[in-house]
Amino acid sequence: MNRKSFDAERNTQNLSEFKKFIPGQSVDCVIISYESHQLYVLLLKWKGDTFWSLPGGFIYKEEDIDNAASRVLKQRTGLEFPYLTQFYTFGKNNRTKNFDTSVFLESVKQDSPEVTEWLSQRFITTGYIALVNKSNTRPLPDALSERCEWVPLDELPKMLFDHPLIIEKAMESLLIQINYLPVGIKLLPASFTMKDLQKLYESILKKELDRSNFQRKILKLSILERLEKIKNGGAHKAPYLYRFNKLKYEELLKSGIGFTY
Amino acid sequence: MNRKSFDAERNTQNLSEFKKFIPGQSVDCVIISYESHQLYVLLLKWKGDTFWSLPGGFIYKEEDIDNAASRVLKQRTGLEFPYLTQFYTFGKNNRTKNFDTSVFLESVKQDSPEVTEWLSQRFITTGYIALVNKSNTRPLPDALSERCEWVPLDELPKMLFDHPLIIEKAMESLLIQINYLPVGIKLLPASFTMKDLQKLYESILKKELDRSNFQRKILKLSILERLEKIKNGGAHKAPYLYRFNKLKYEELLKSGIGFTY
Repeated sequence: MNRKSFDAERNTQNLSEFKKFIPGQSVDCVIISYESHQLYVLLLKWKGDTFWSLPGGFIYKEEDIDNAASRVLKQRTGLEFPYLTQFYTFGKNNRTKNFDTSVFLESVKQDSPEVTEWLSQRFITTGYIALVNKSNTRPLPDALSERCEWVPLDELPKMLFDHPLIIEKAMESLLIQINYLPVGIKLLPASFTMKDLQKLYESILKKELDRSNFQRKILKLSILERLEKIKNGGAHKAPYLYRFNKLKYEELLKSGIGFTY
Repeated sequence: MNRKSFDAERNTQNLSEFKKFIPGQSVDCVIISYESHQLYVLLLKWKGDTFWSLPGGFIYKEEDIDNAASRVLKQRTGLEFPYLTQFYTFGKNNRTKNFDTSVFLESVKQDSPEVTEWLSQRFITTGYIALVNKSNTRPLPDALSERCEWVPLDELPKMLFDHPLIIEKAMESLLIQINYLPVGIKLLPASFTMKDLQKLYESILKKELDRSNFQRKILKLSILERLEKIKNGGAHKAPYLYRFNKLKYEELLKSGIGFTY
């Protein structure tokens, strides 16, 4: 599809659609997954352009903002009951006023003045974070994008608006969260090794951890169940597999694992 | 001042003022203080009515939302450099649609239709929490209120909109925060007893704590300095006074006190 037909589609879709939304308000979703010792974030590549952005959207005039965020996440990942938490609202007056965003809006303007007009408003956006299992998702672009992909968190492409900051703040909130709540049940497969779990924590904390110290502390939380080794040739050398005890995990999600006075 | 003159003032102040704000967006401040073993929240009583609400406000068209919140806090408390943190954005479509709020808006409507029209919009509001020392503040009502007062947190009056929920959520965020960050430097006087500090924690955690366990854990954080007892008659019976070591406290604000892997 060439640039022209993209934009024709854009125009018809958006002129009627934009009027249904609250002006000046948006949601942006930082959807995080984990695979092969690496954290990923779900990004969209804009049609006919080199810029990427977070999956986001606008809020229908009678829609709760939490529901707007769930809708966006569901549409982009195919997940039926996504679990999202709000982490921050970005409300700086100049949050989207930067060079790349101006270039982008100018290029869109020629074909779709209405899209540019809508996107050029001041938006206050509320950020949501979701931890999901990559393999359960079917990433799908939205009307304004041509690709929707998992991108390694340490290889972010050129992004529009203040989206790099939003990702940074999301990871900060995950870093705080990891110190008072258990993390991992949504990010790891059903069974995993202690090393897998440690690598996940190291990815989020951005530092190496001492193996025996980590194992001792994690086991003390009683959220892990060690699985019996399957007996077959050479398997005795394989590391133990663990799974989360969902009941205990849920309990800790309520009571916290942190400093209890 | 009678009802009529309140409303005349309301009208002239707001007609021109409202146009300067972003429609549909607001900030609300949960300003918490502590005195005599009790937590307080700063509330406003609306002019000519029995309803109370949190100090809040609107966002000028080119103002950062953080600055809008600081402005509100400064105007209501007189504090020059208030320290505020954003904790949650409230965006349910029906968040202000309840009986008391309807009655209130209807009563305002007769004299100030513009105020009612403005306040009847759907607002998405961002909540900020501030911990302050009561004795440093000079509470001041705003243009729409007749009183601005510290109210004990467990004796809240009848409140408008979803403000009881906003206070609840603010206290939840403080409860989470107390498990990974030090709390107290803004809420206690310069020097205090161990019992004062324990009582503050008990007020926030809403449970009694074991005295020796609390003391052991708090001292282990190394954020307290014990002051020398002043020698005078009978003073040997007085409990030790402590003060926060600001440097260590600031360090812990960055690194956290919680579960470190």
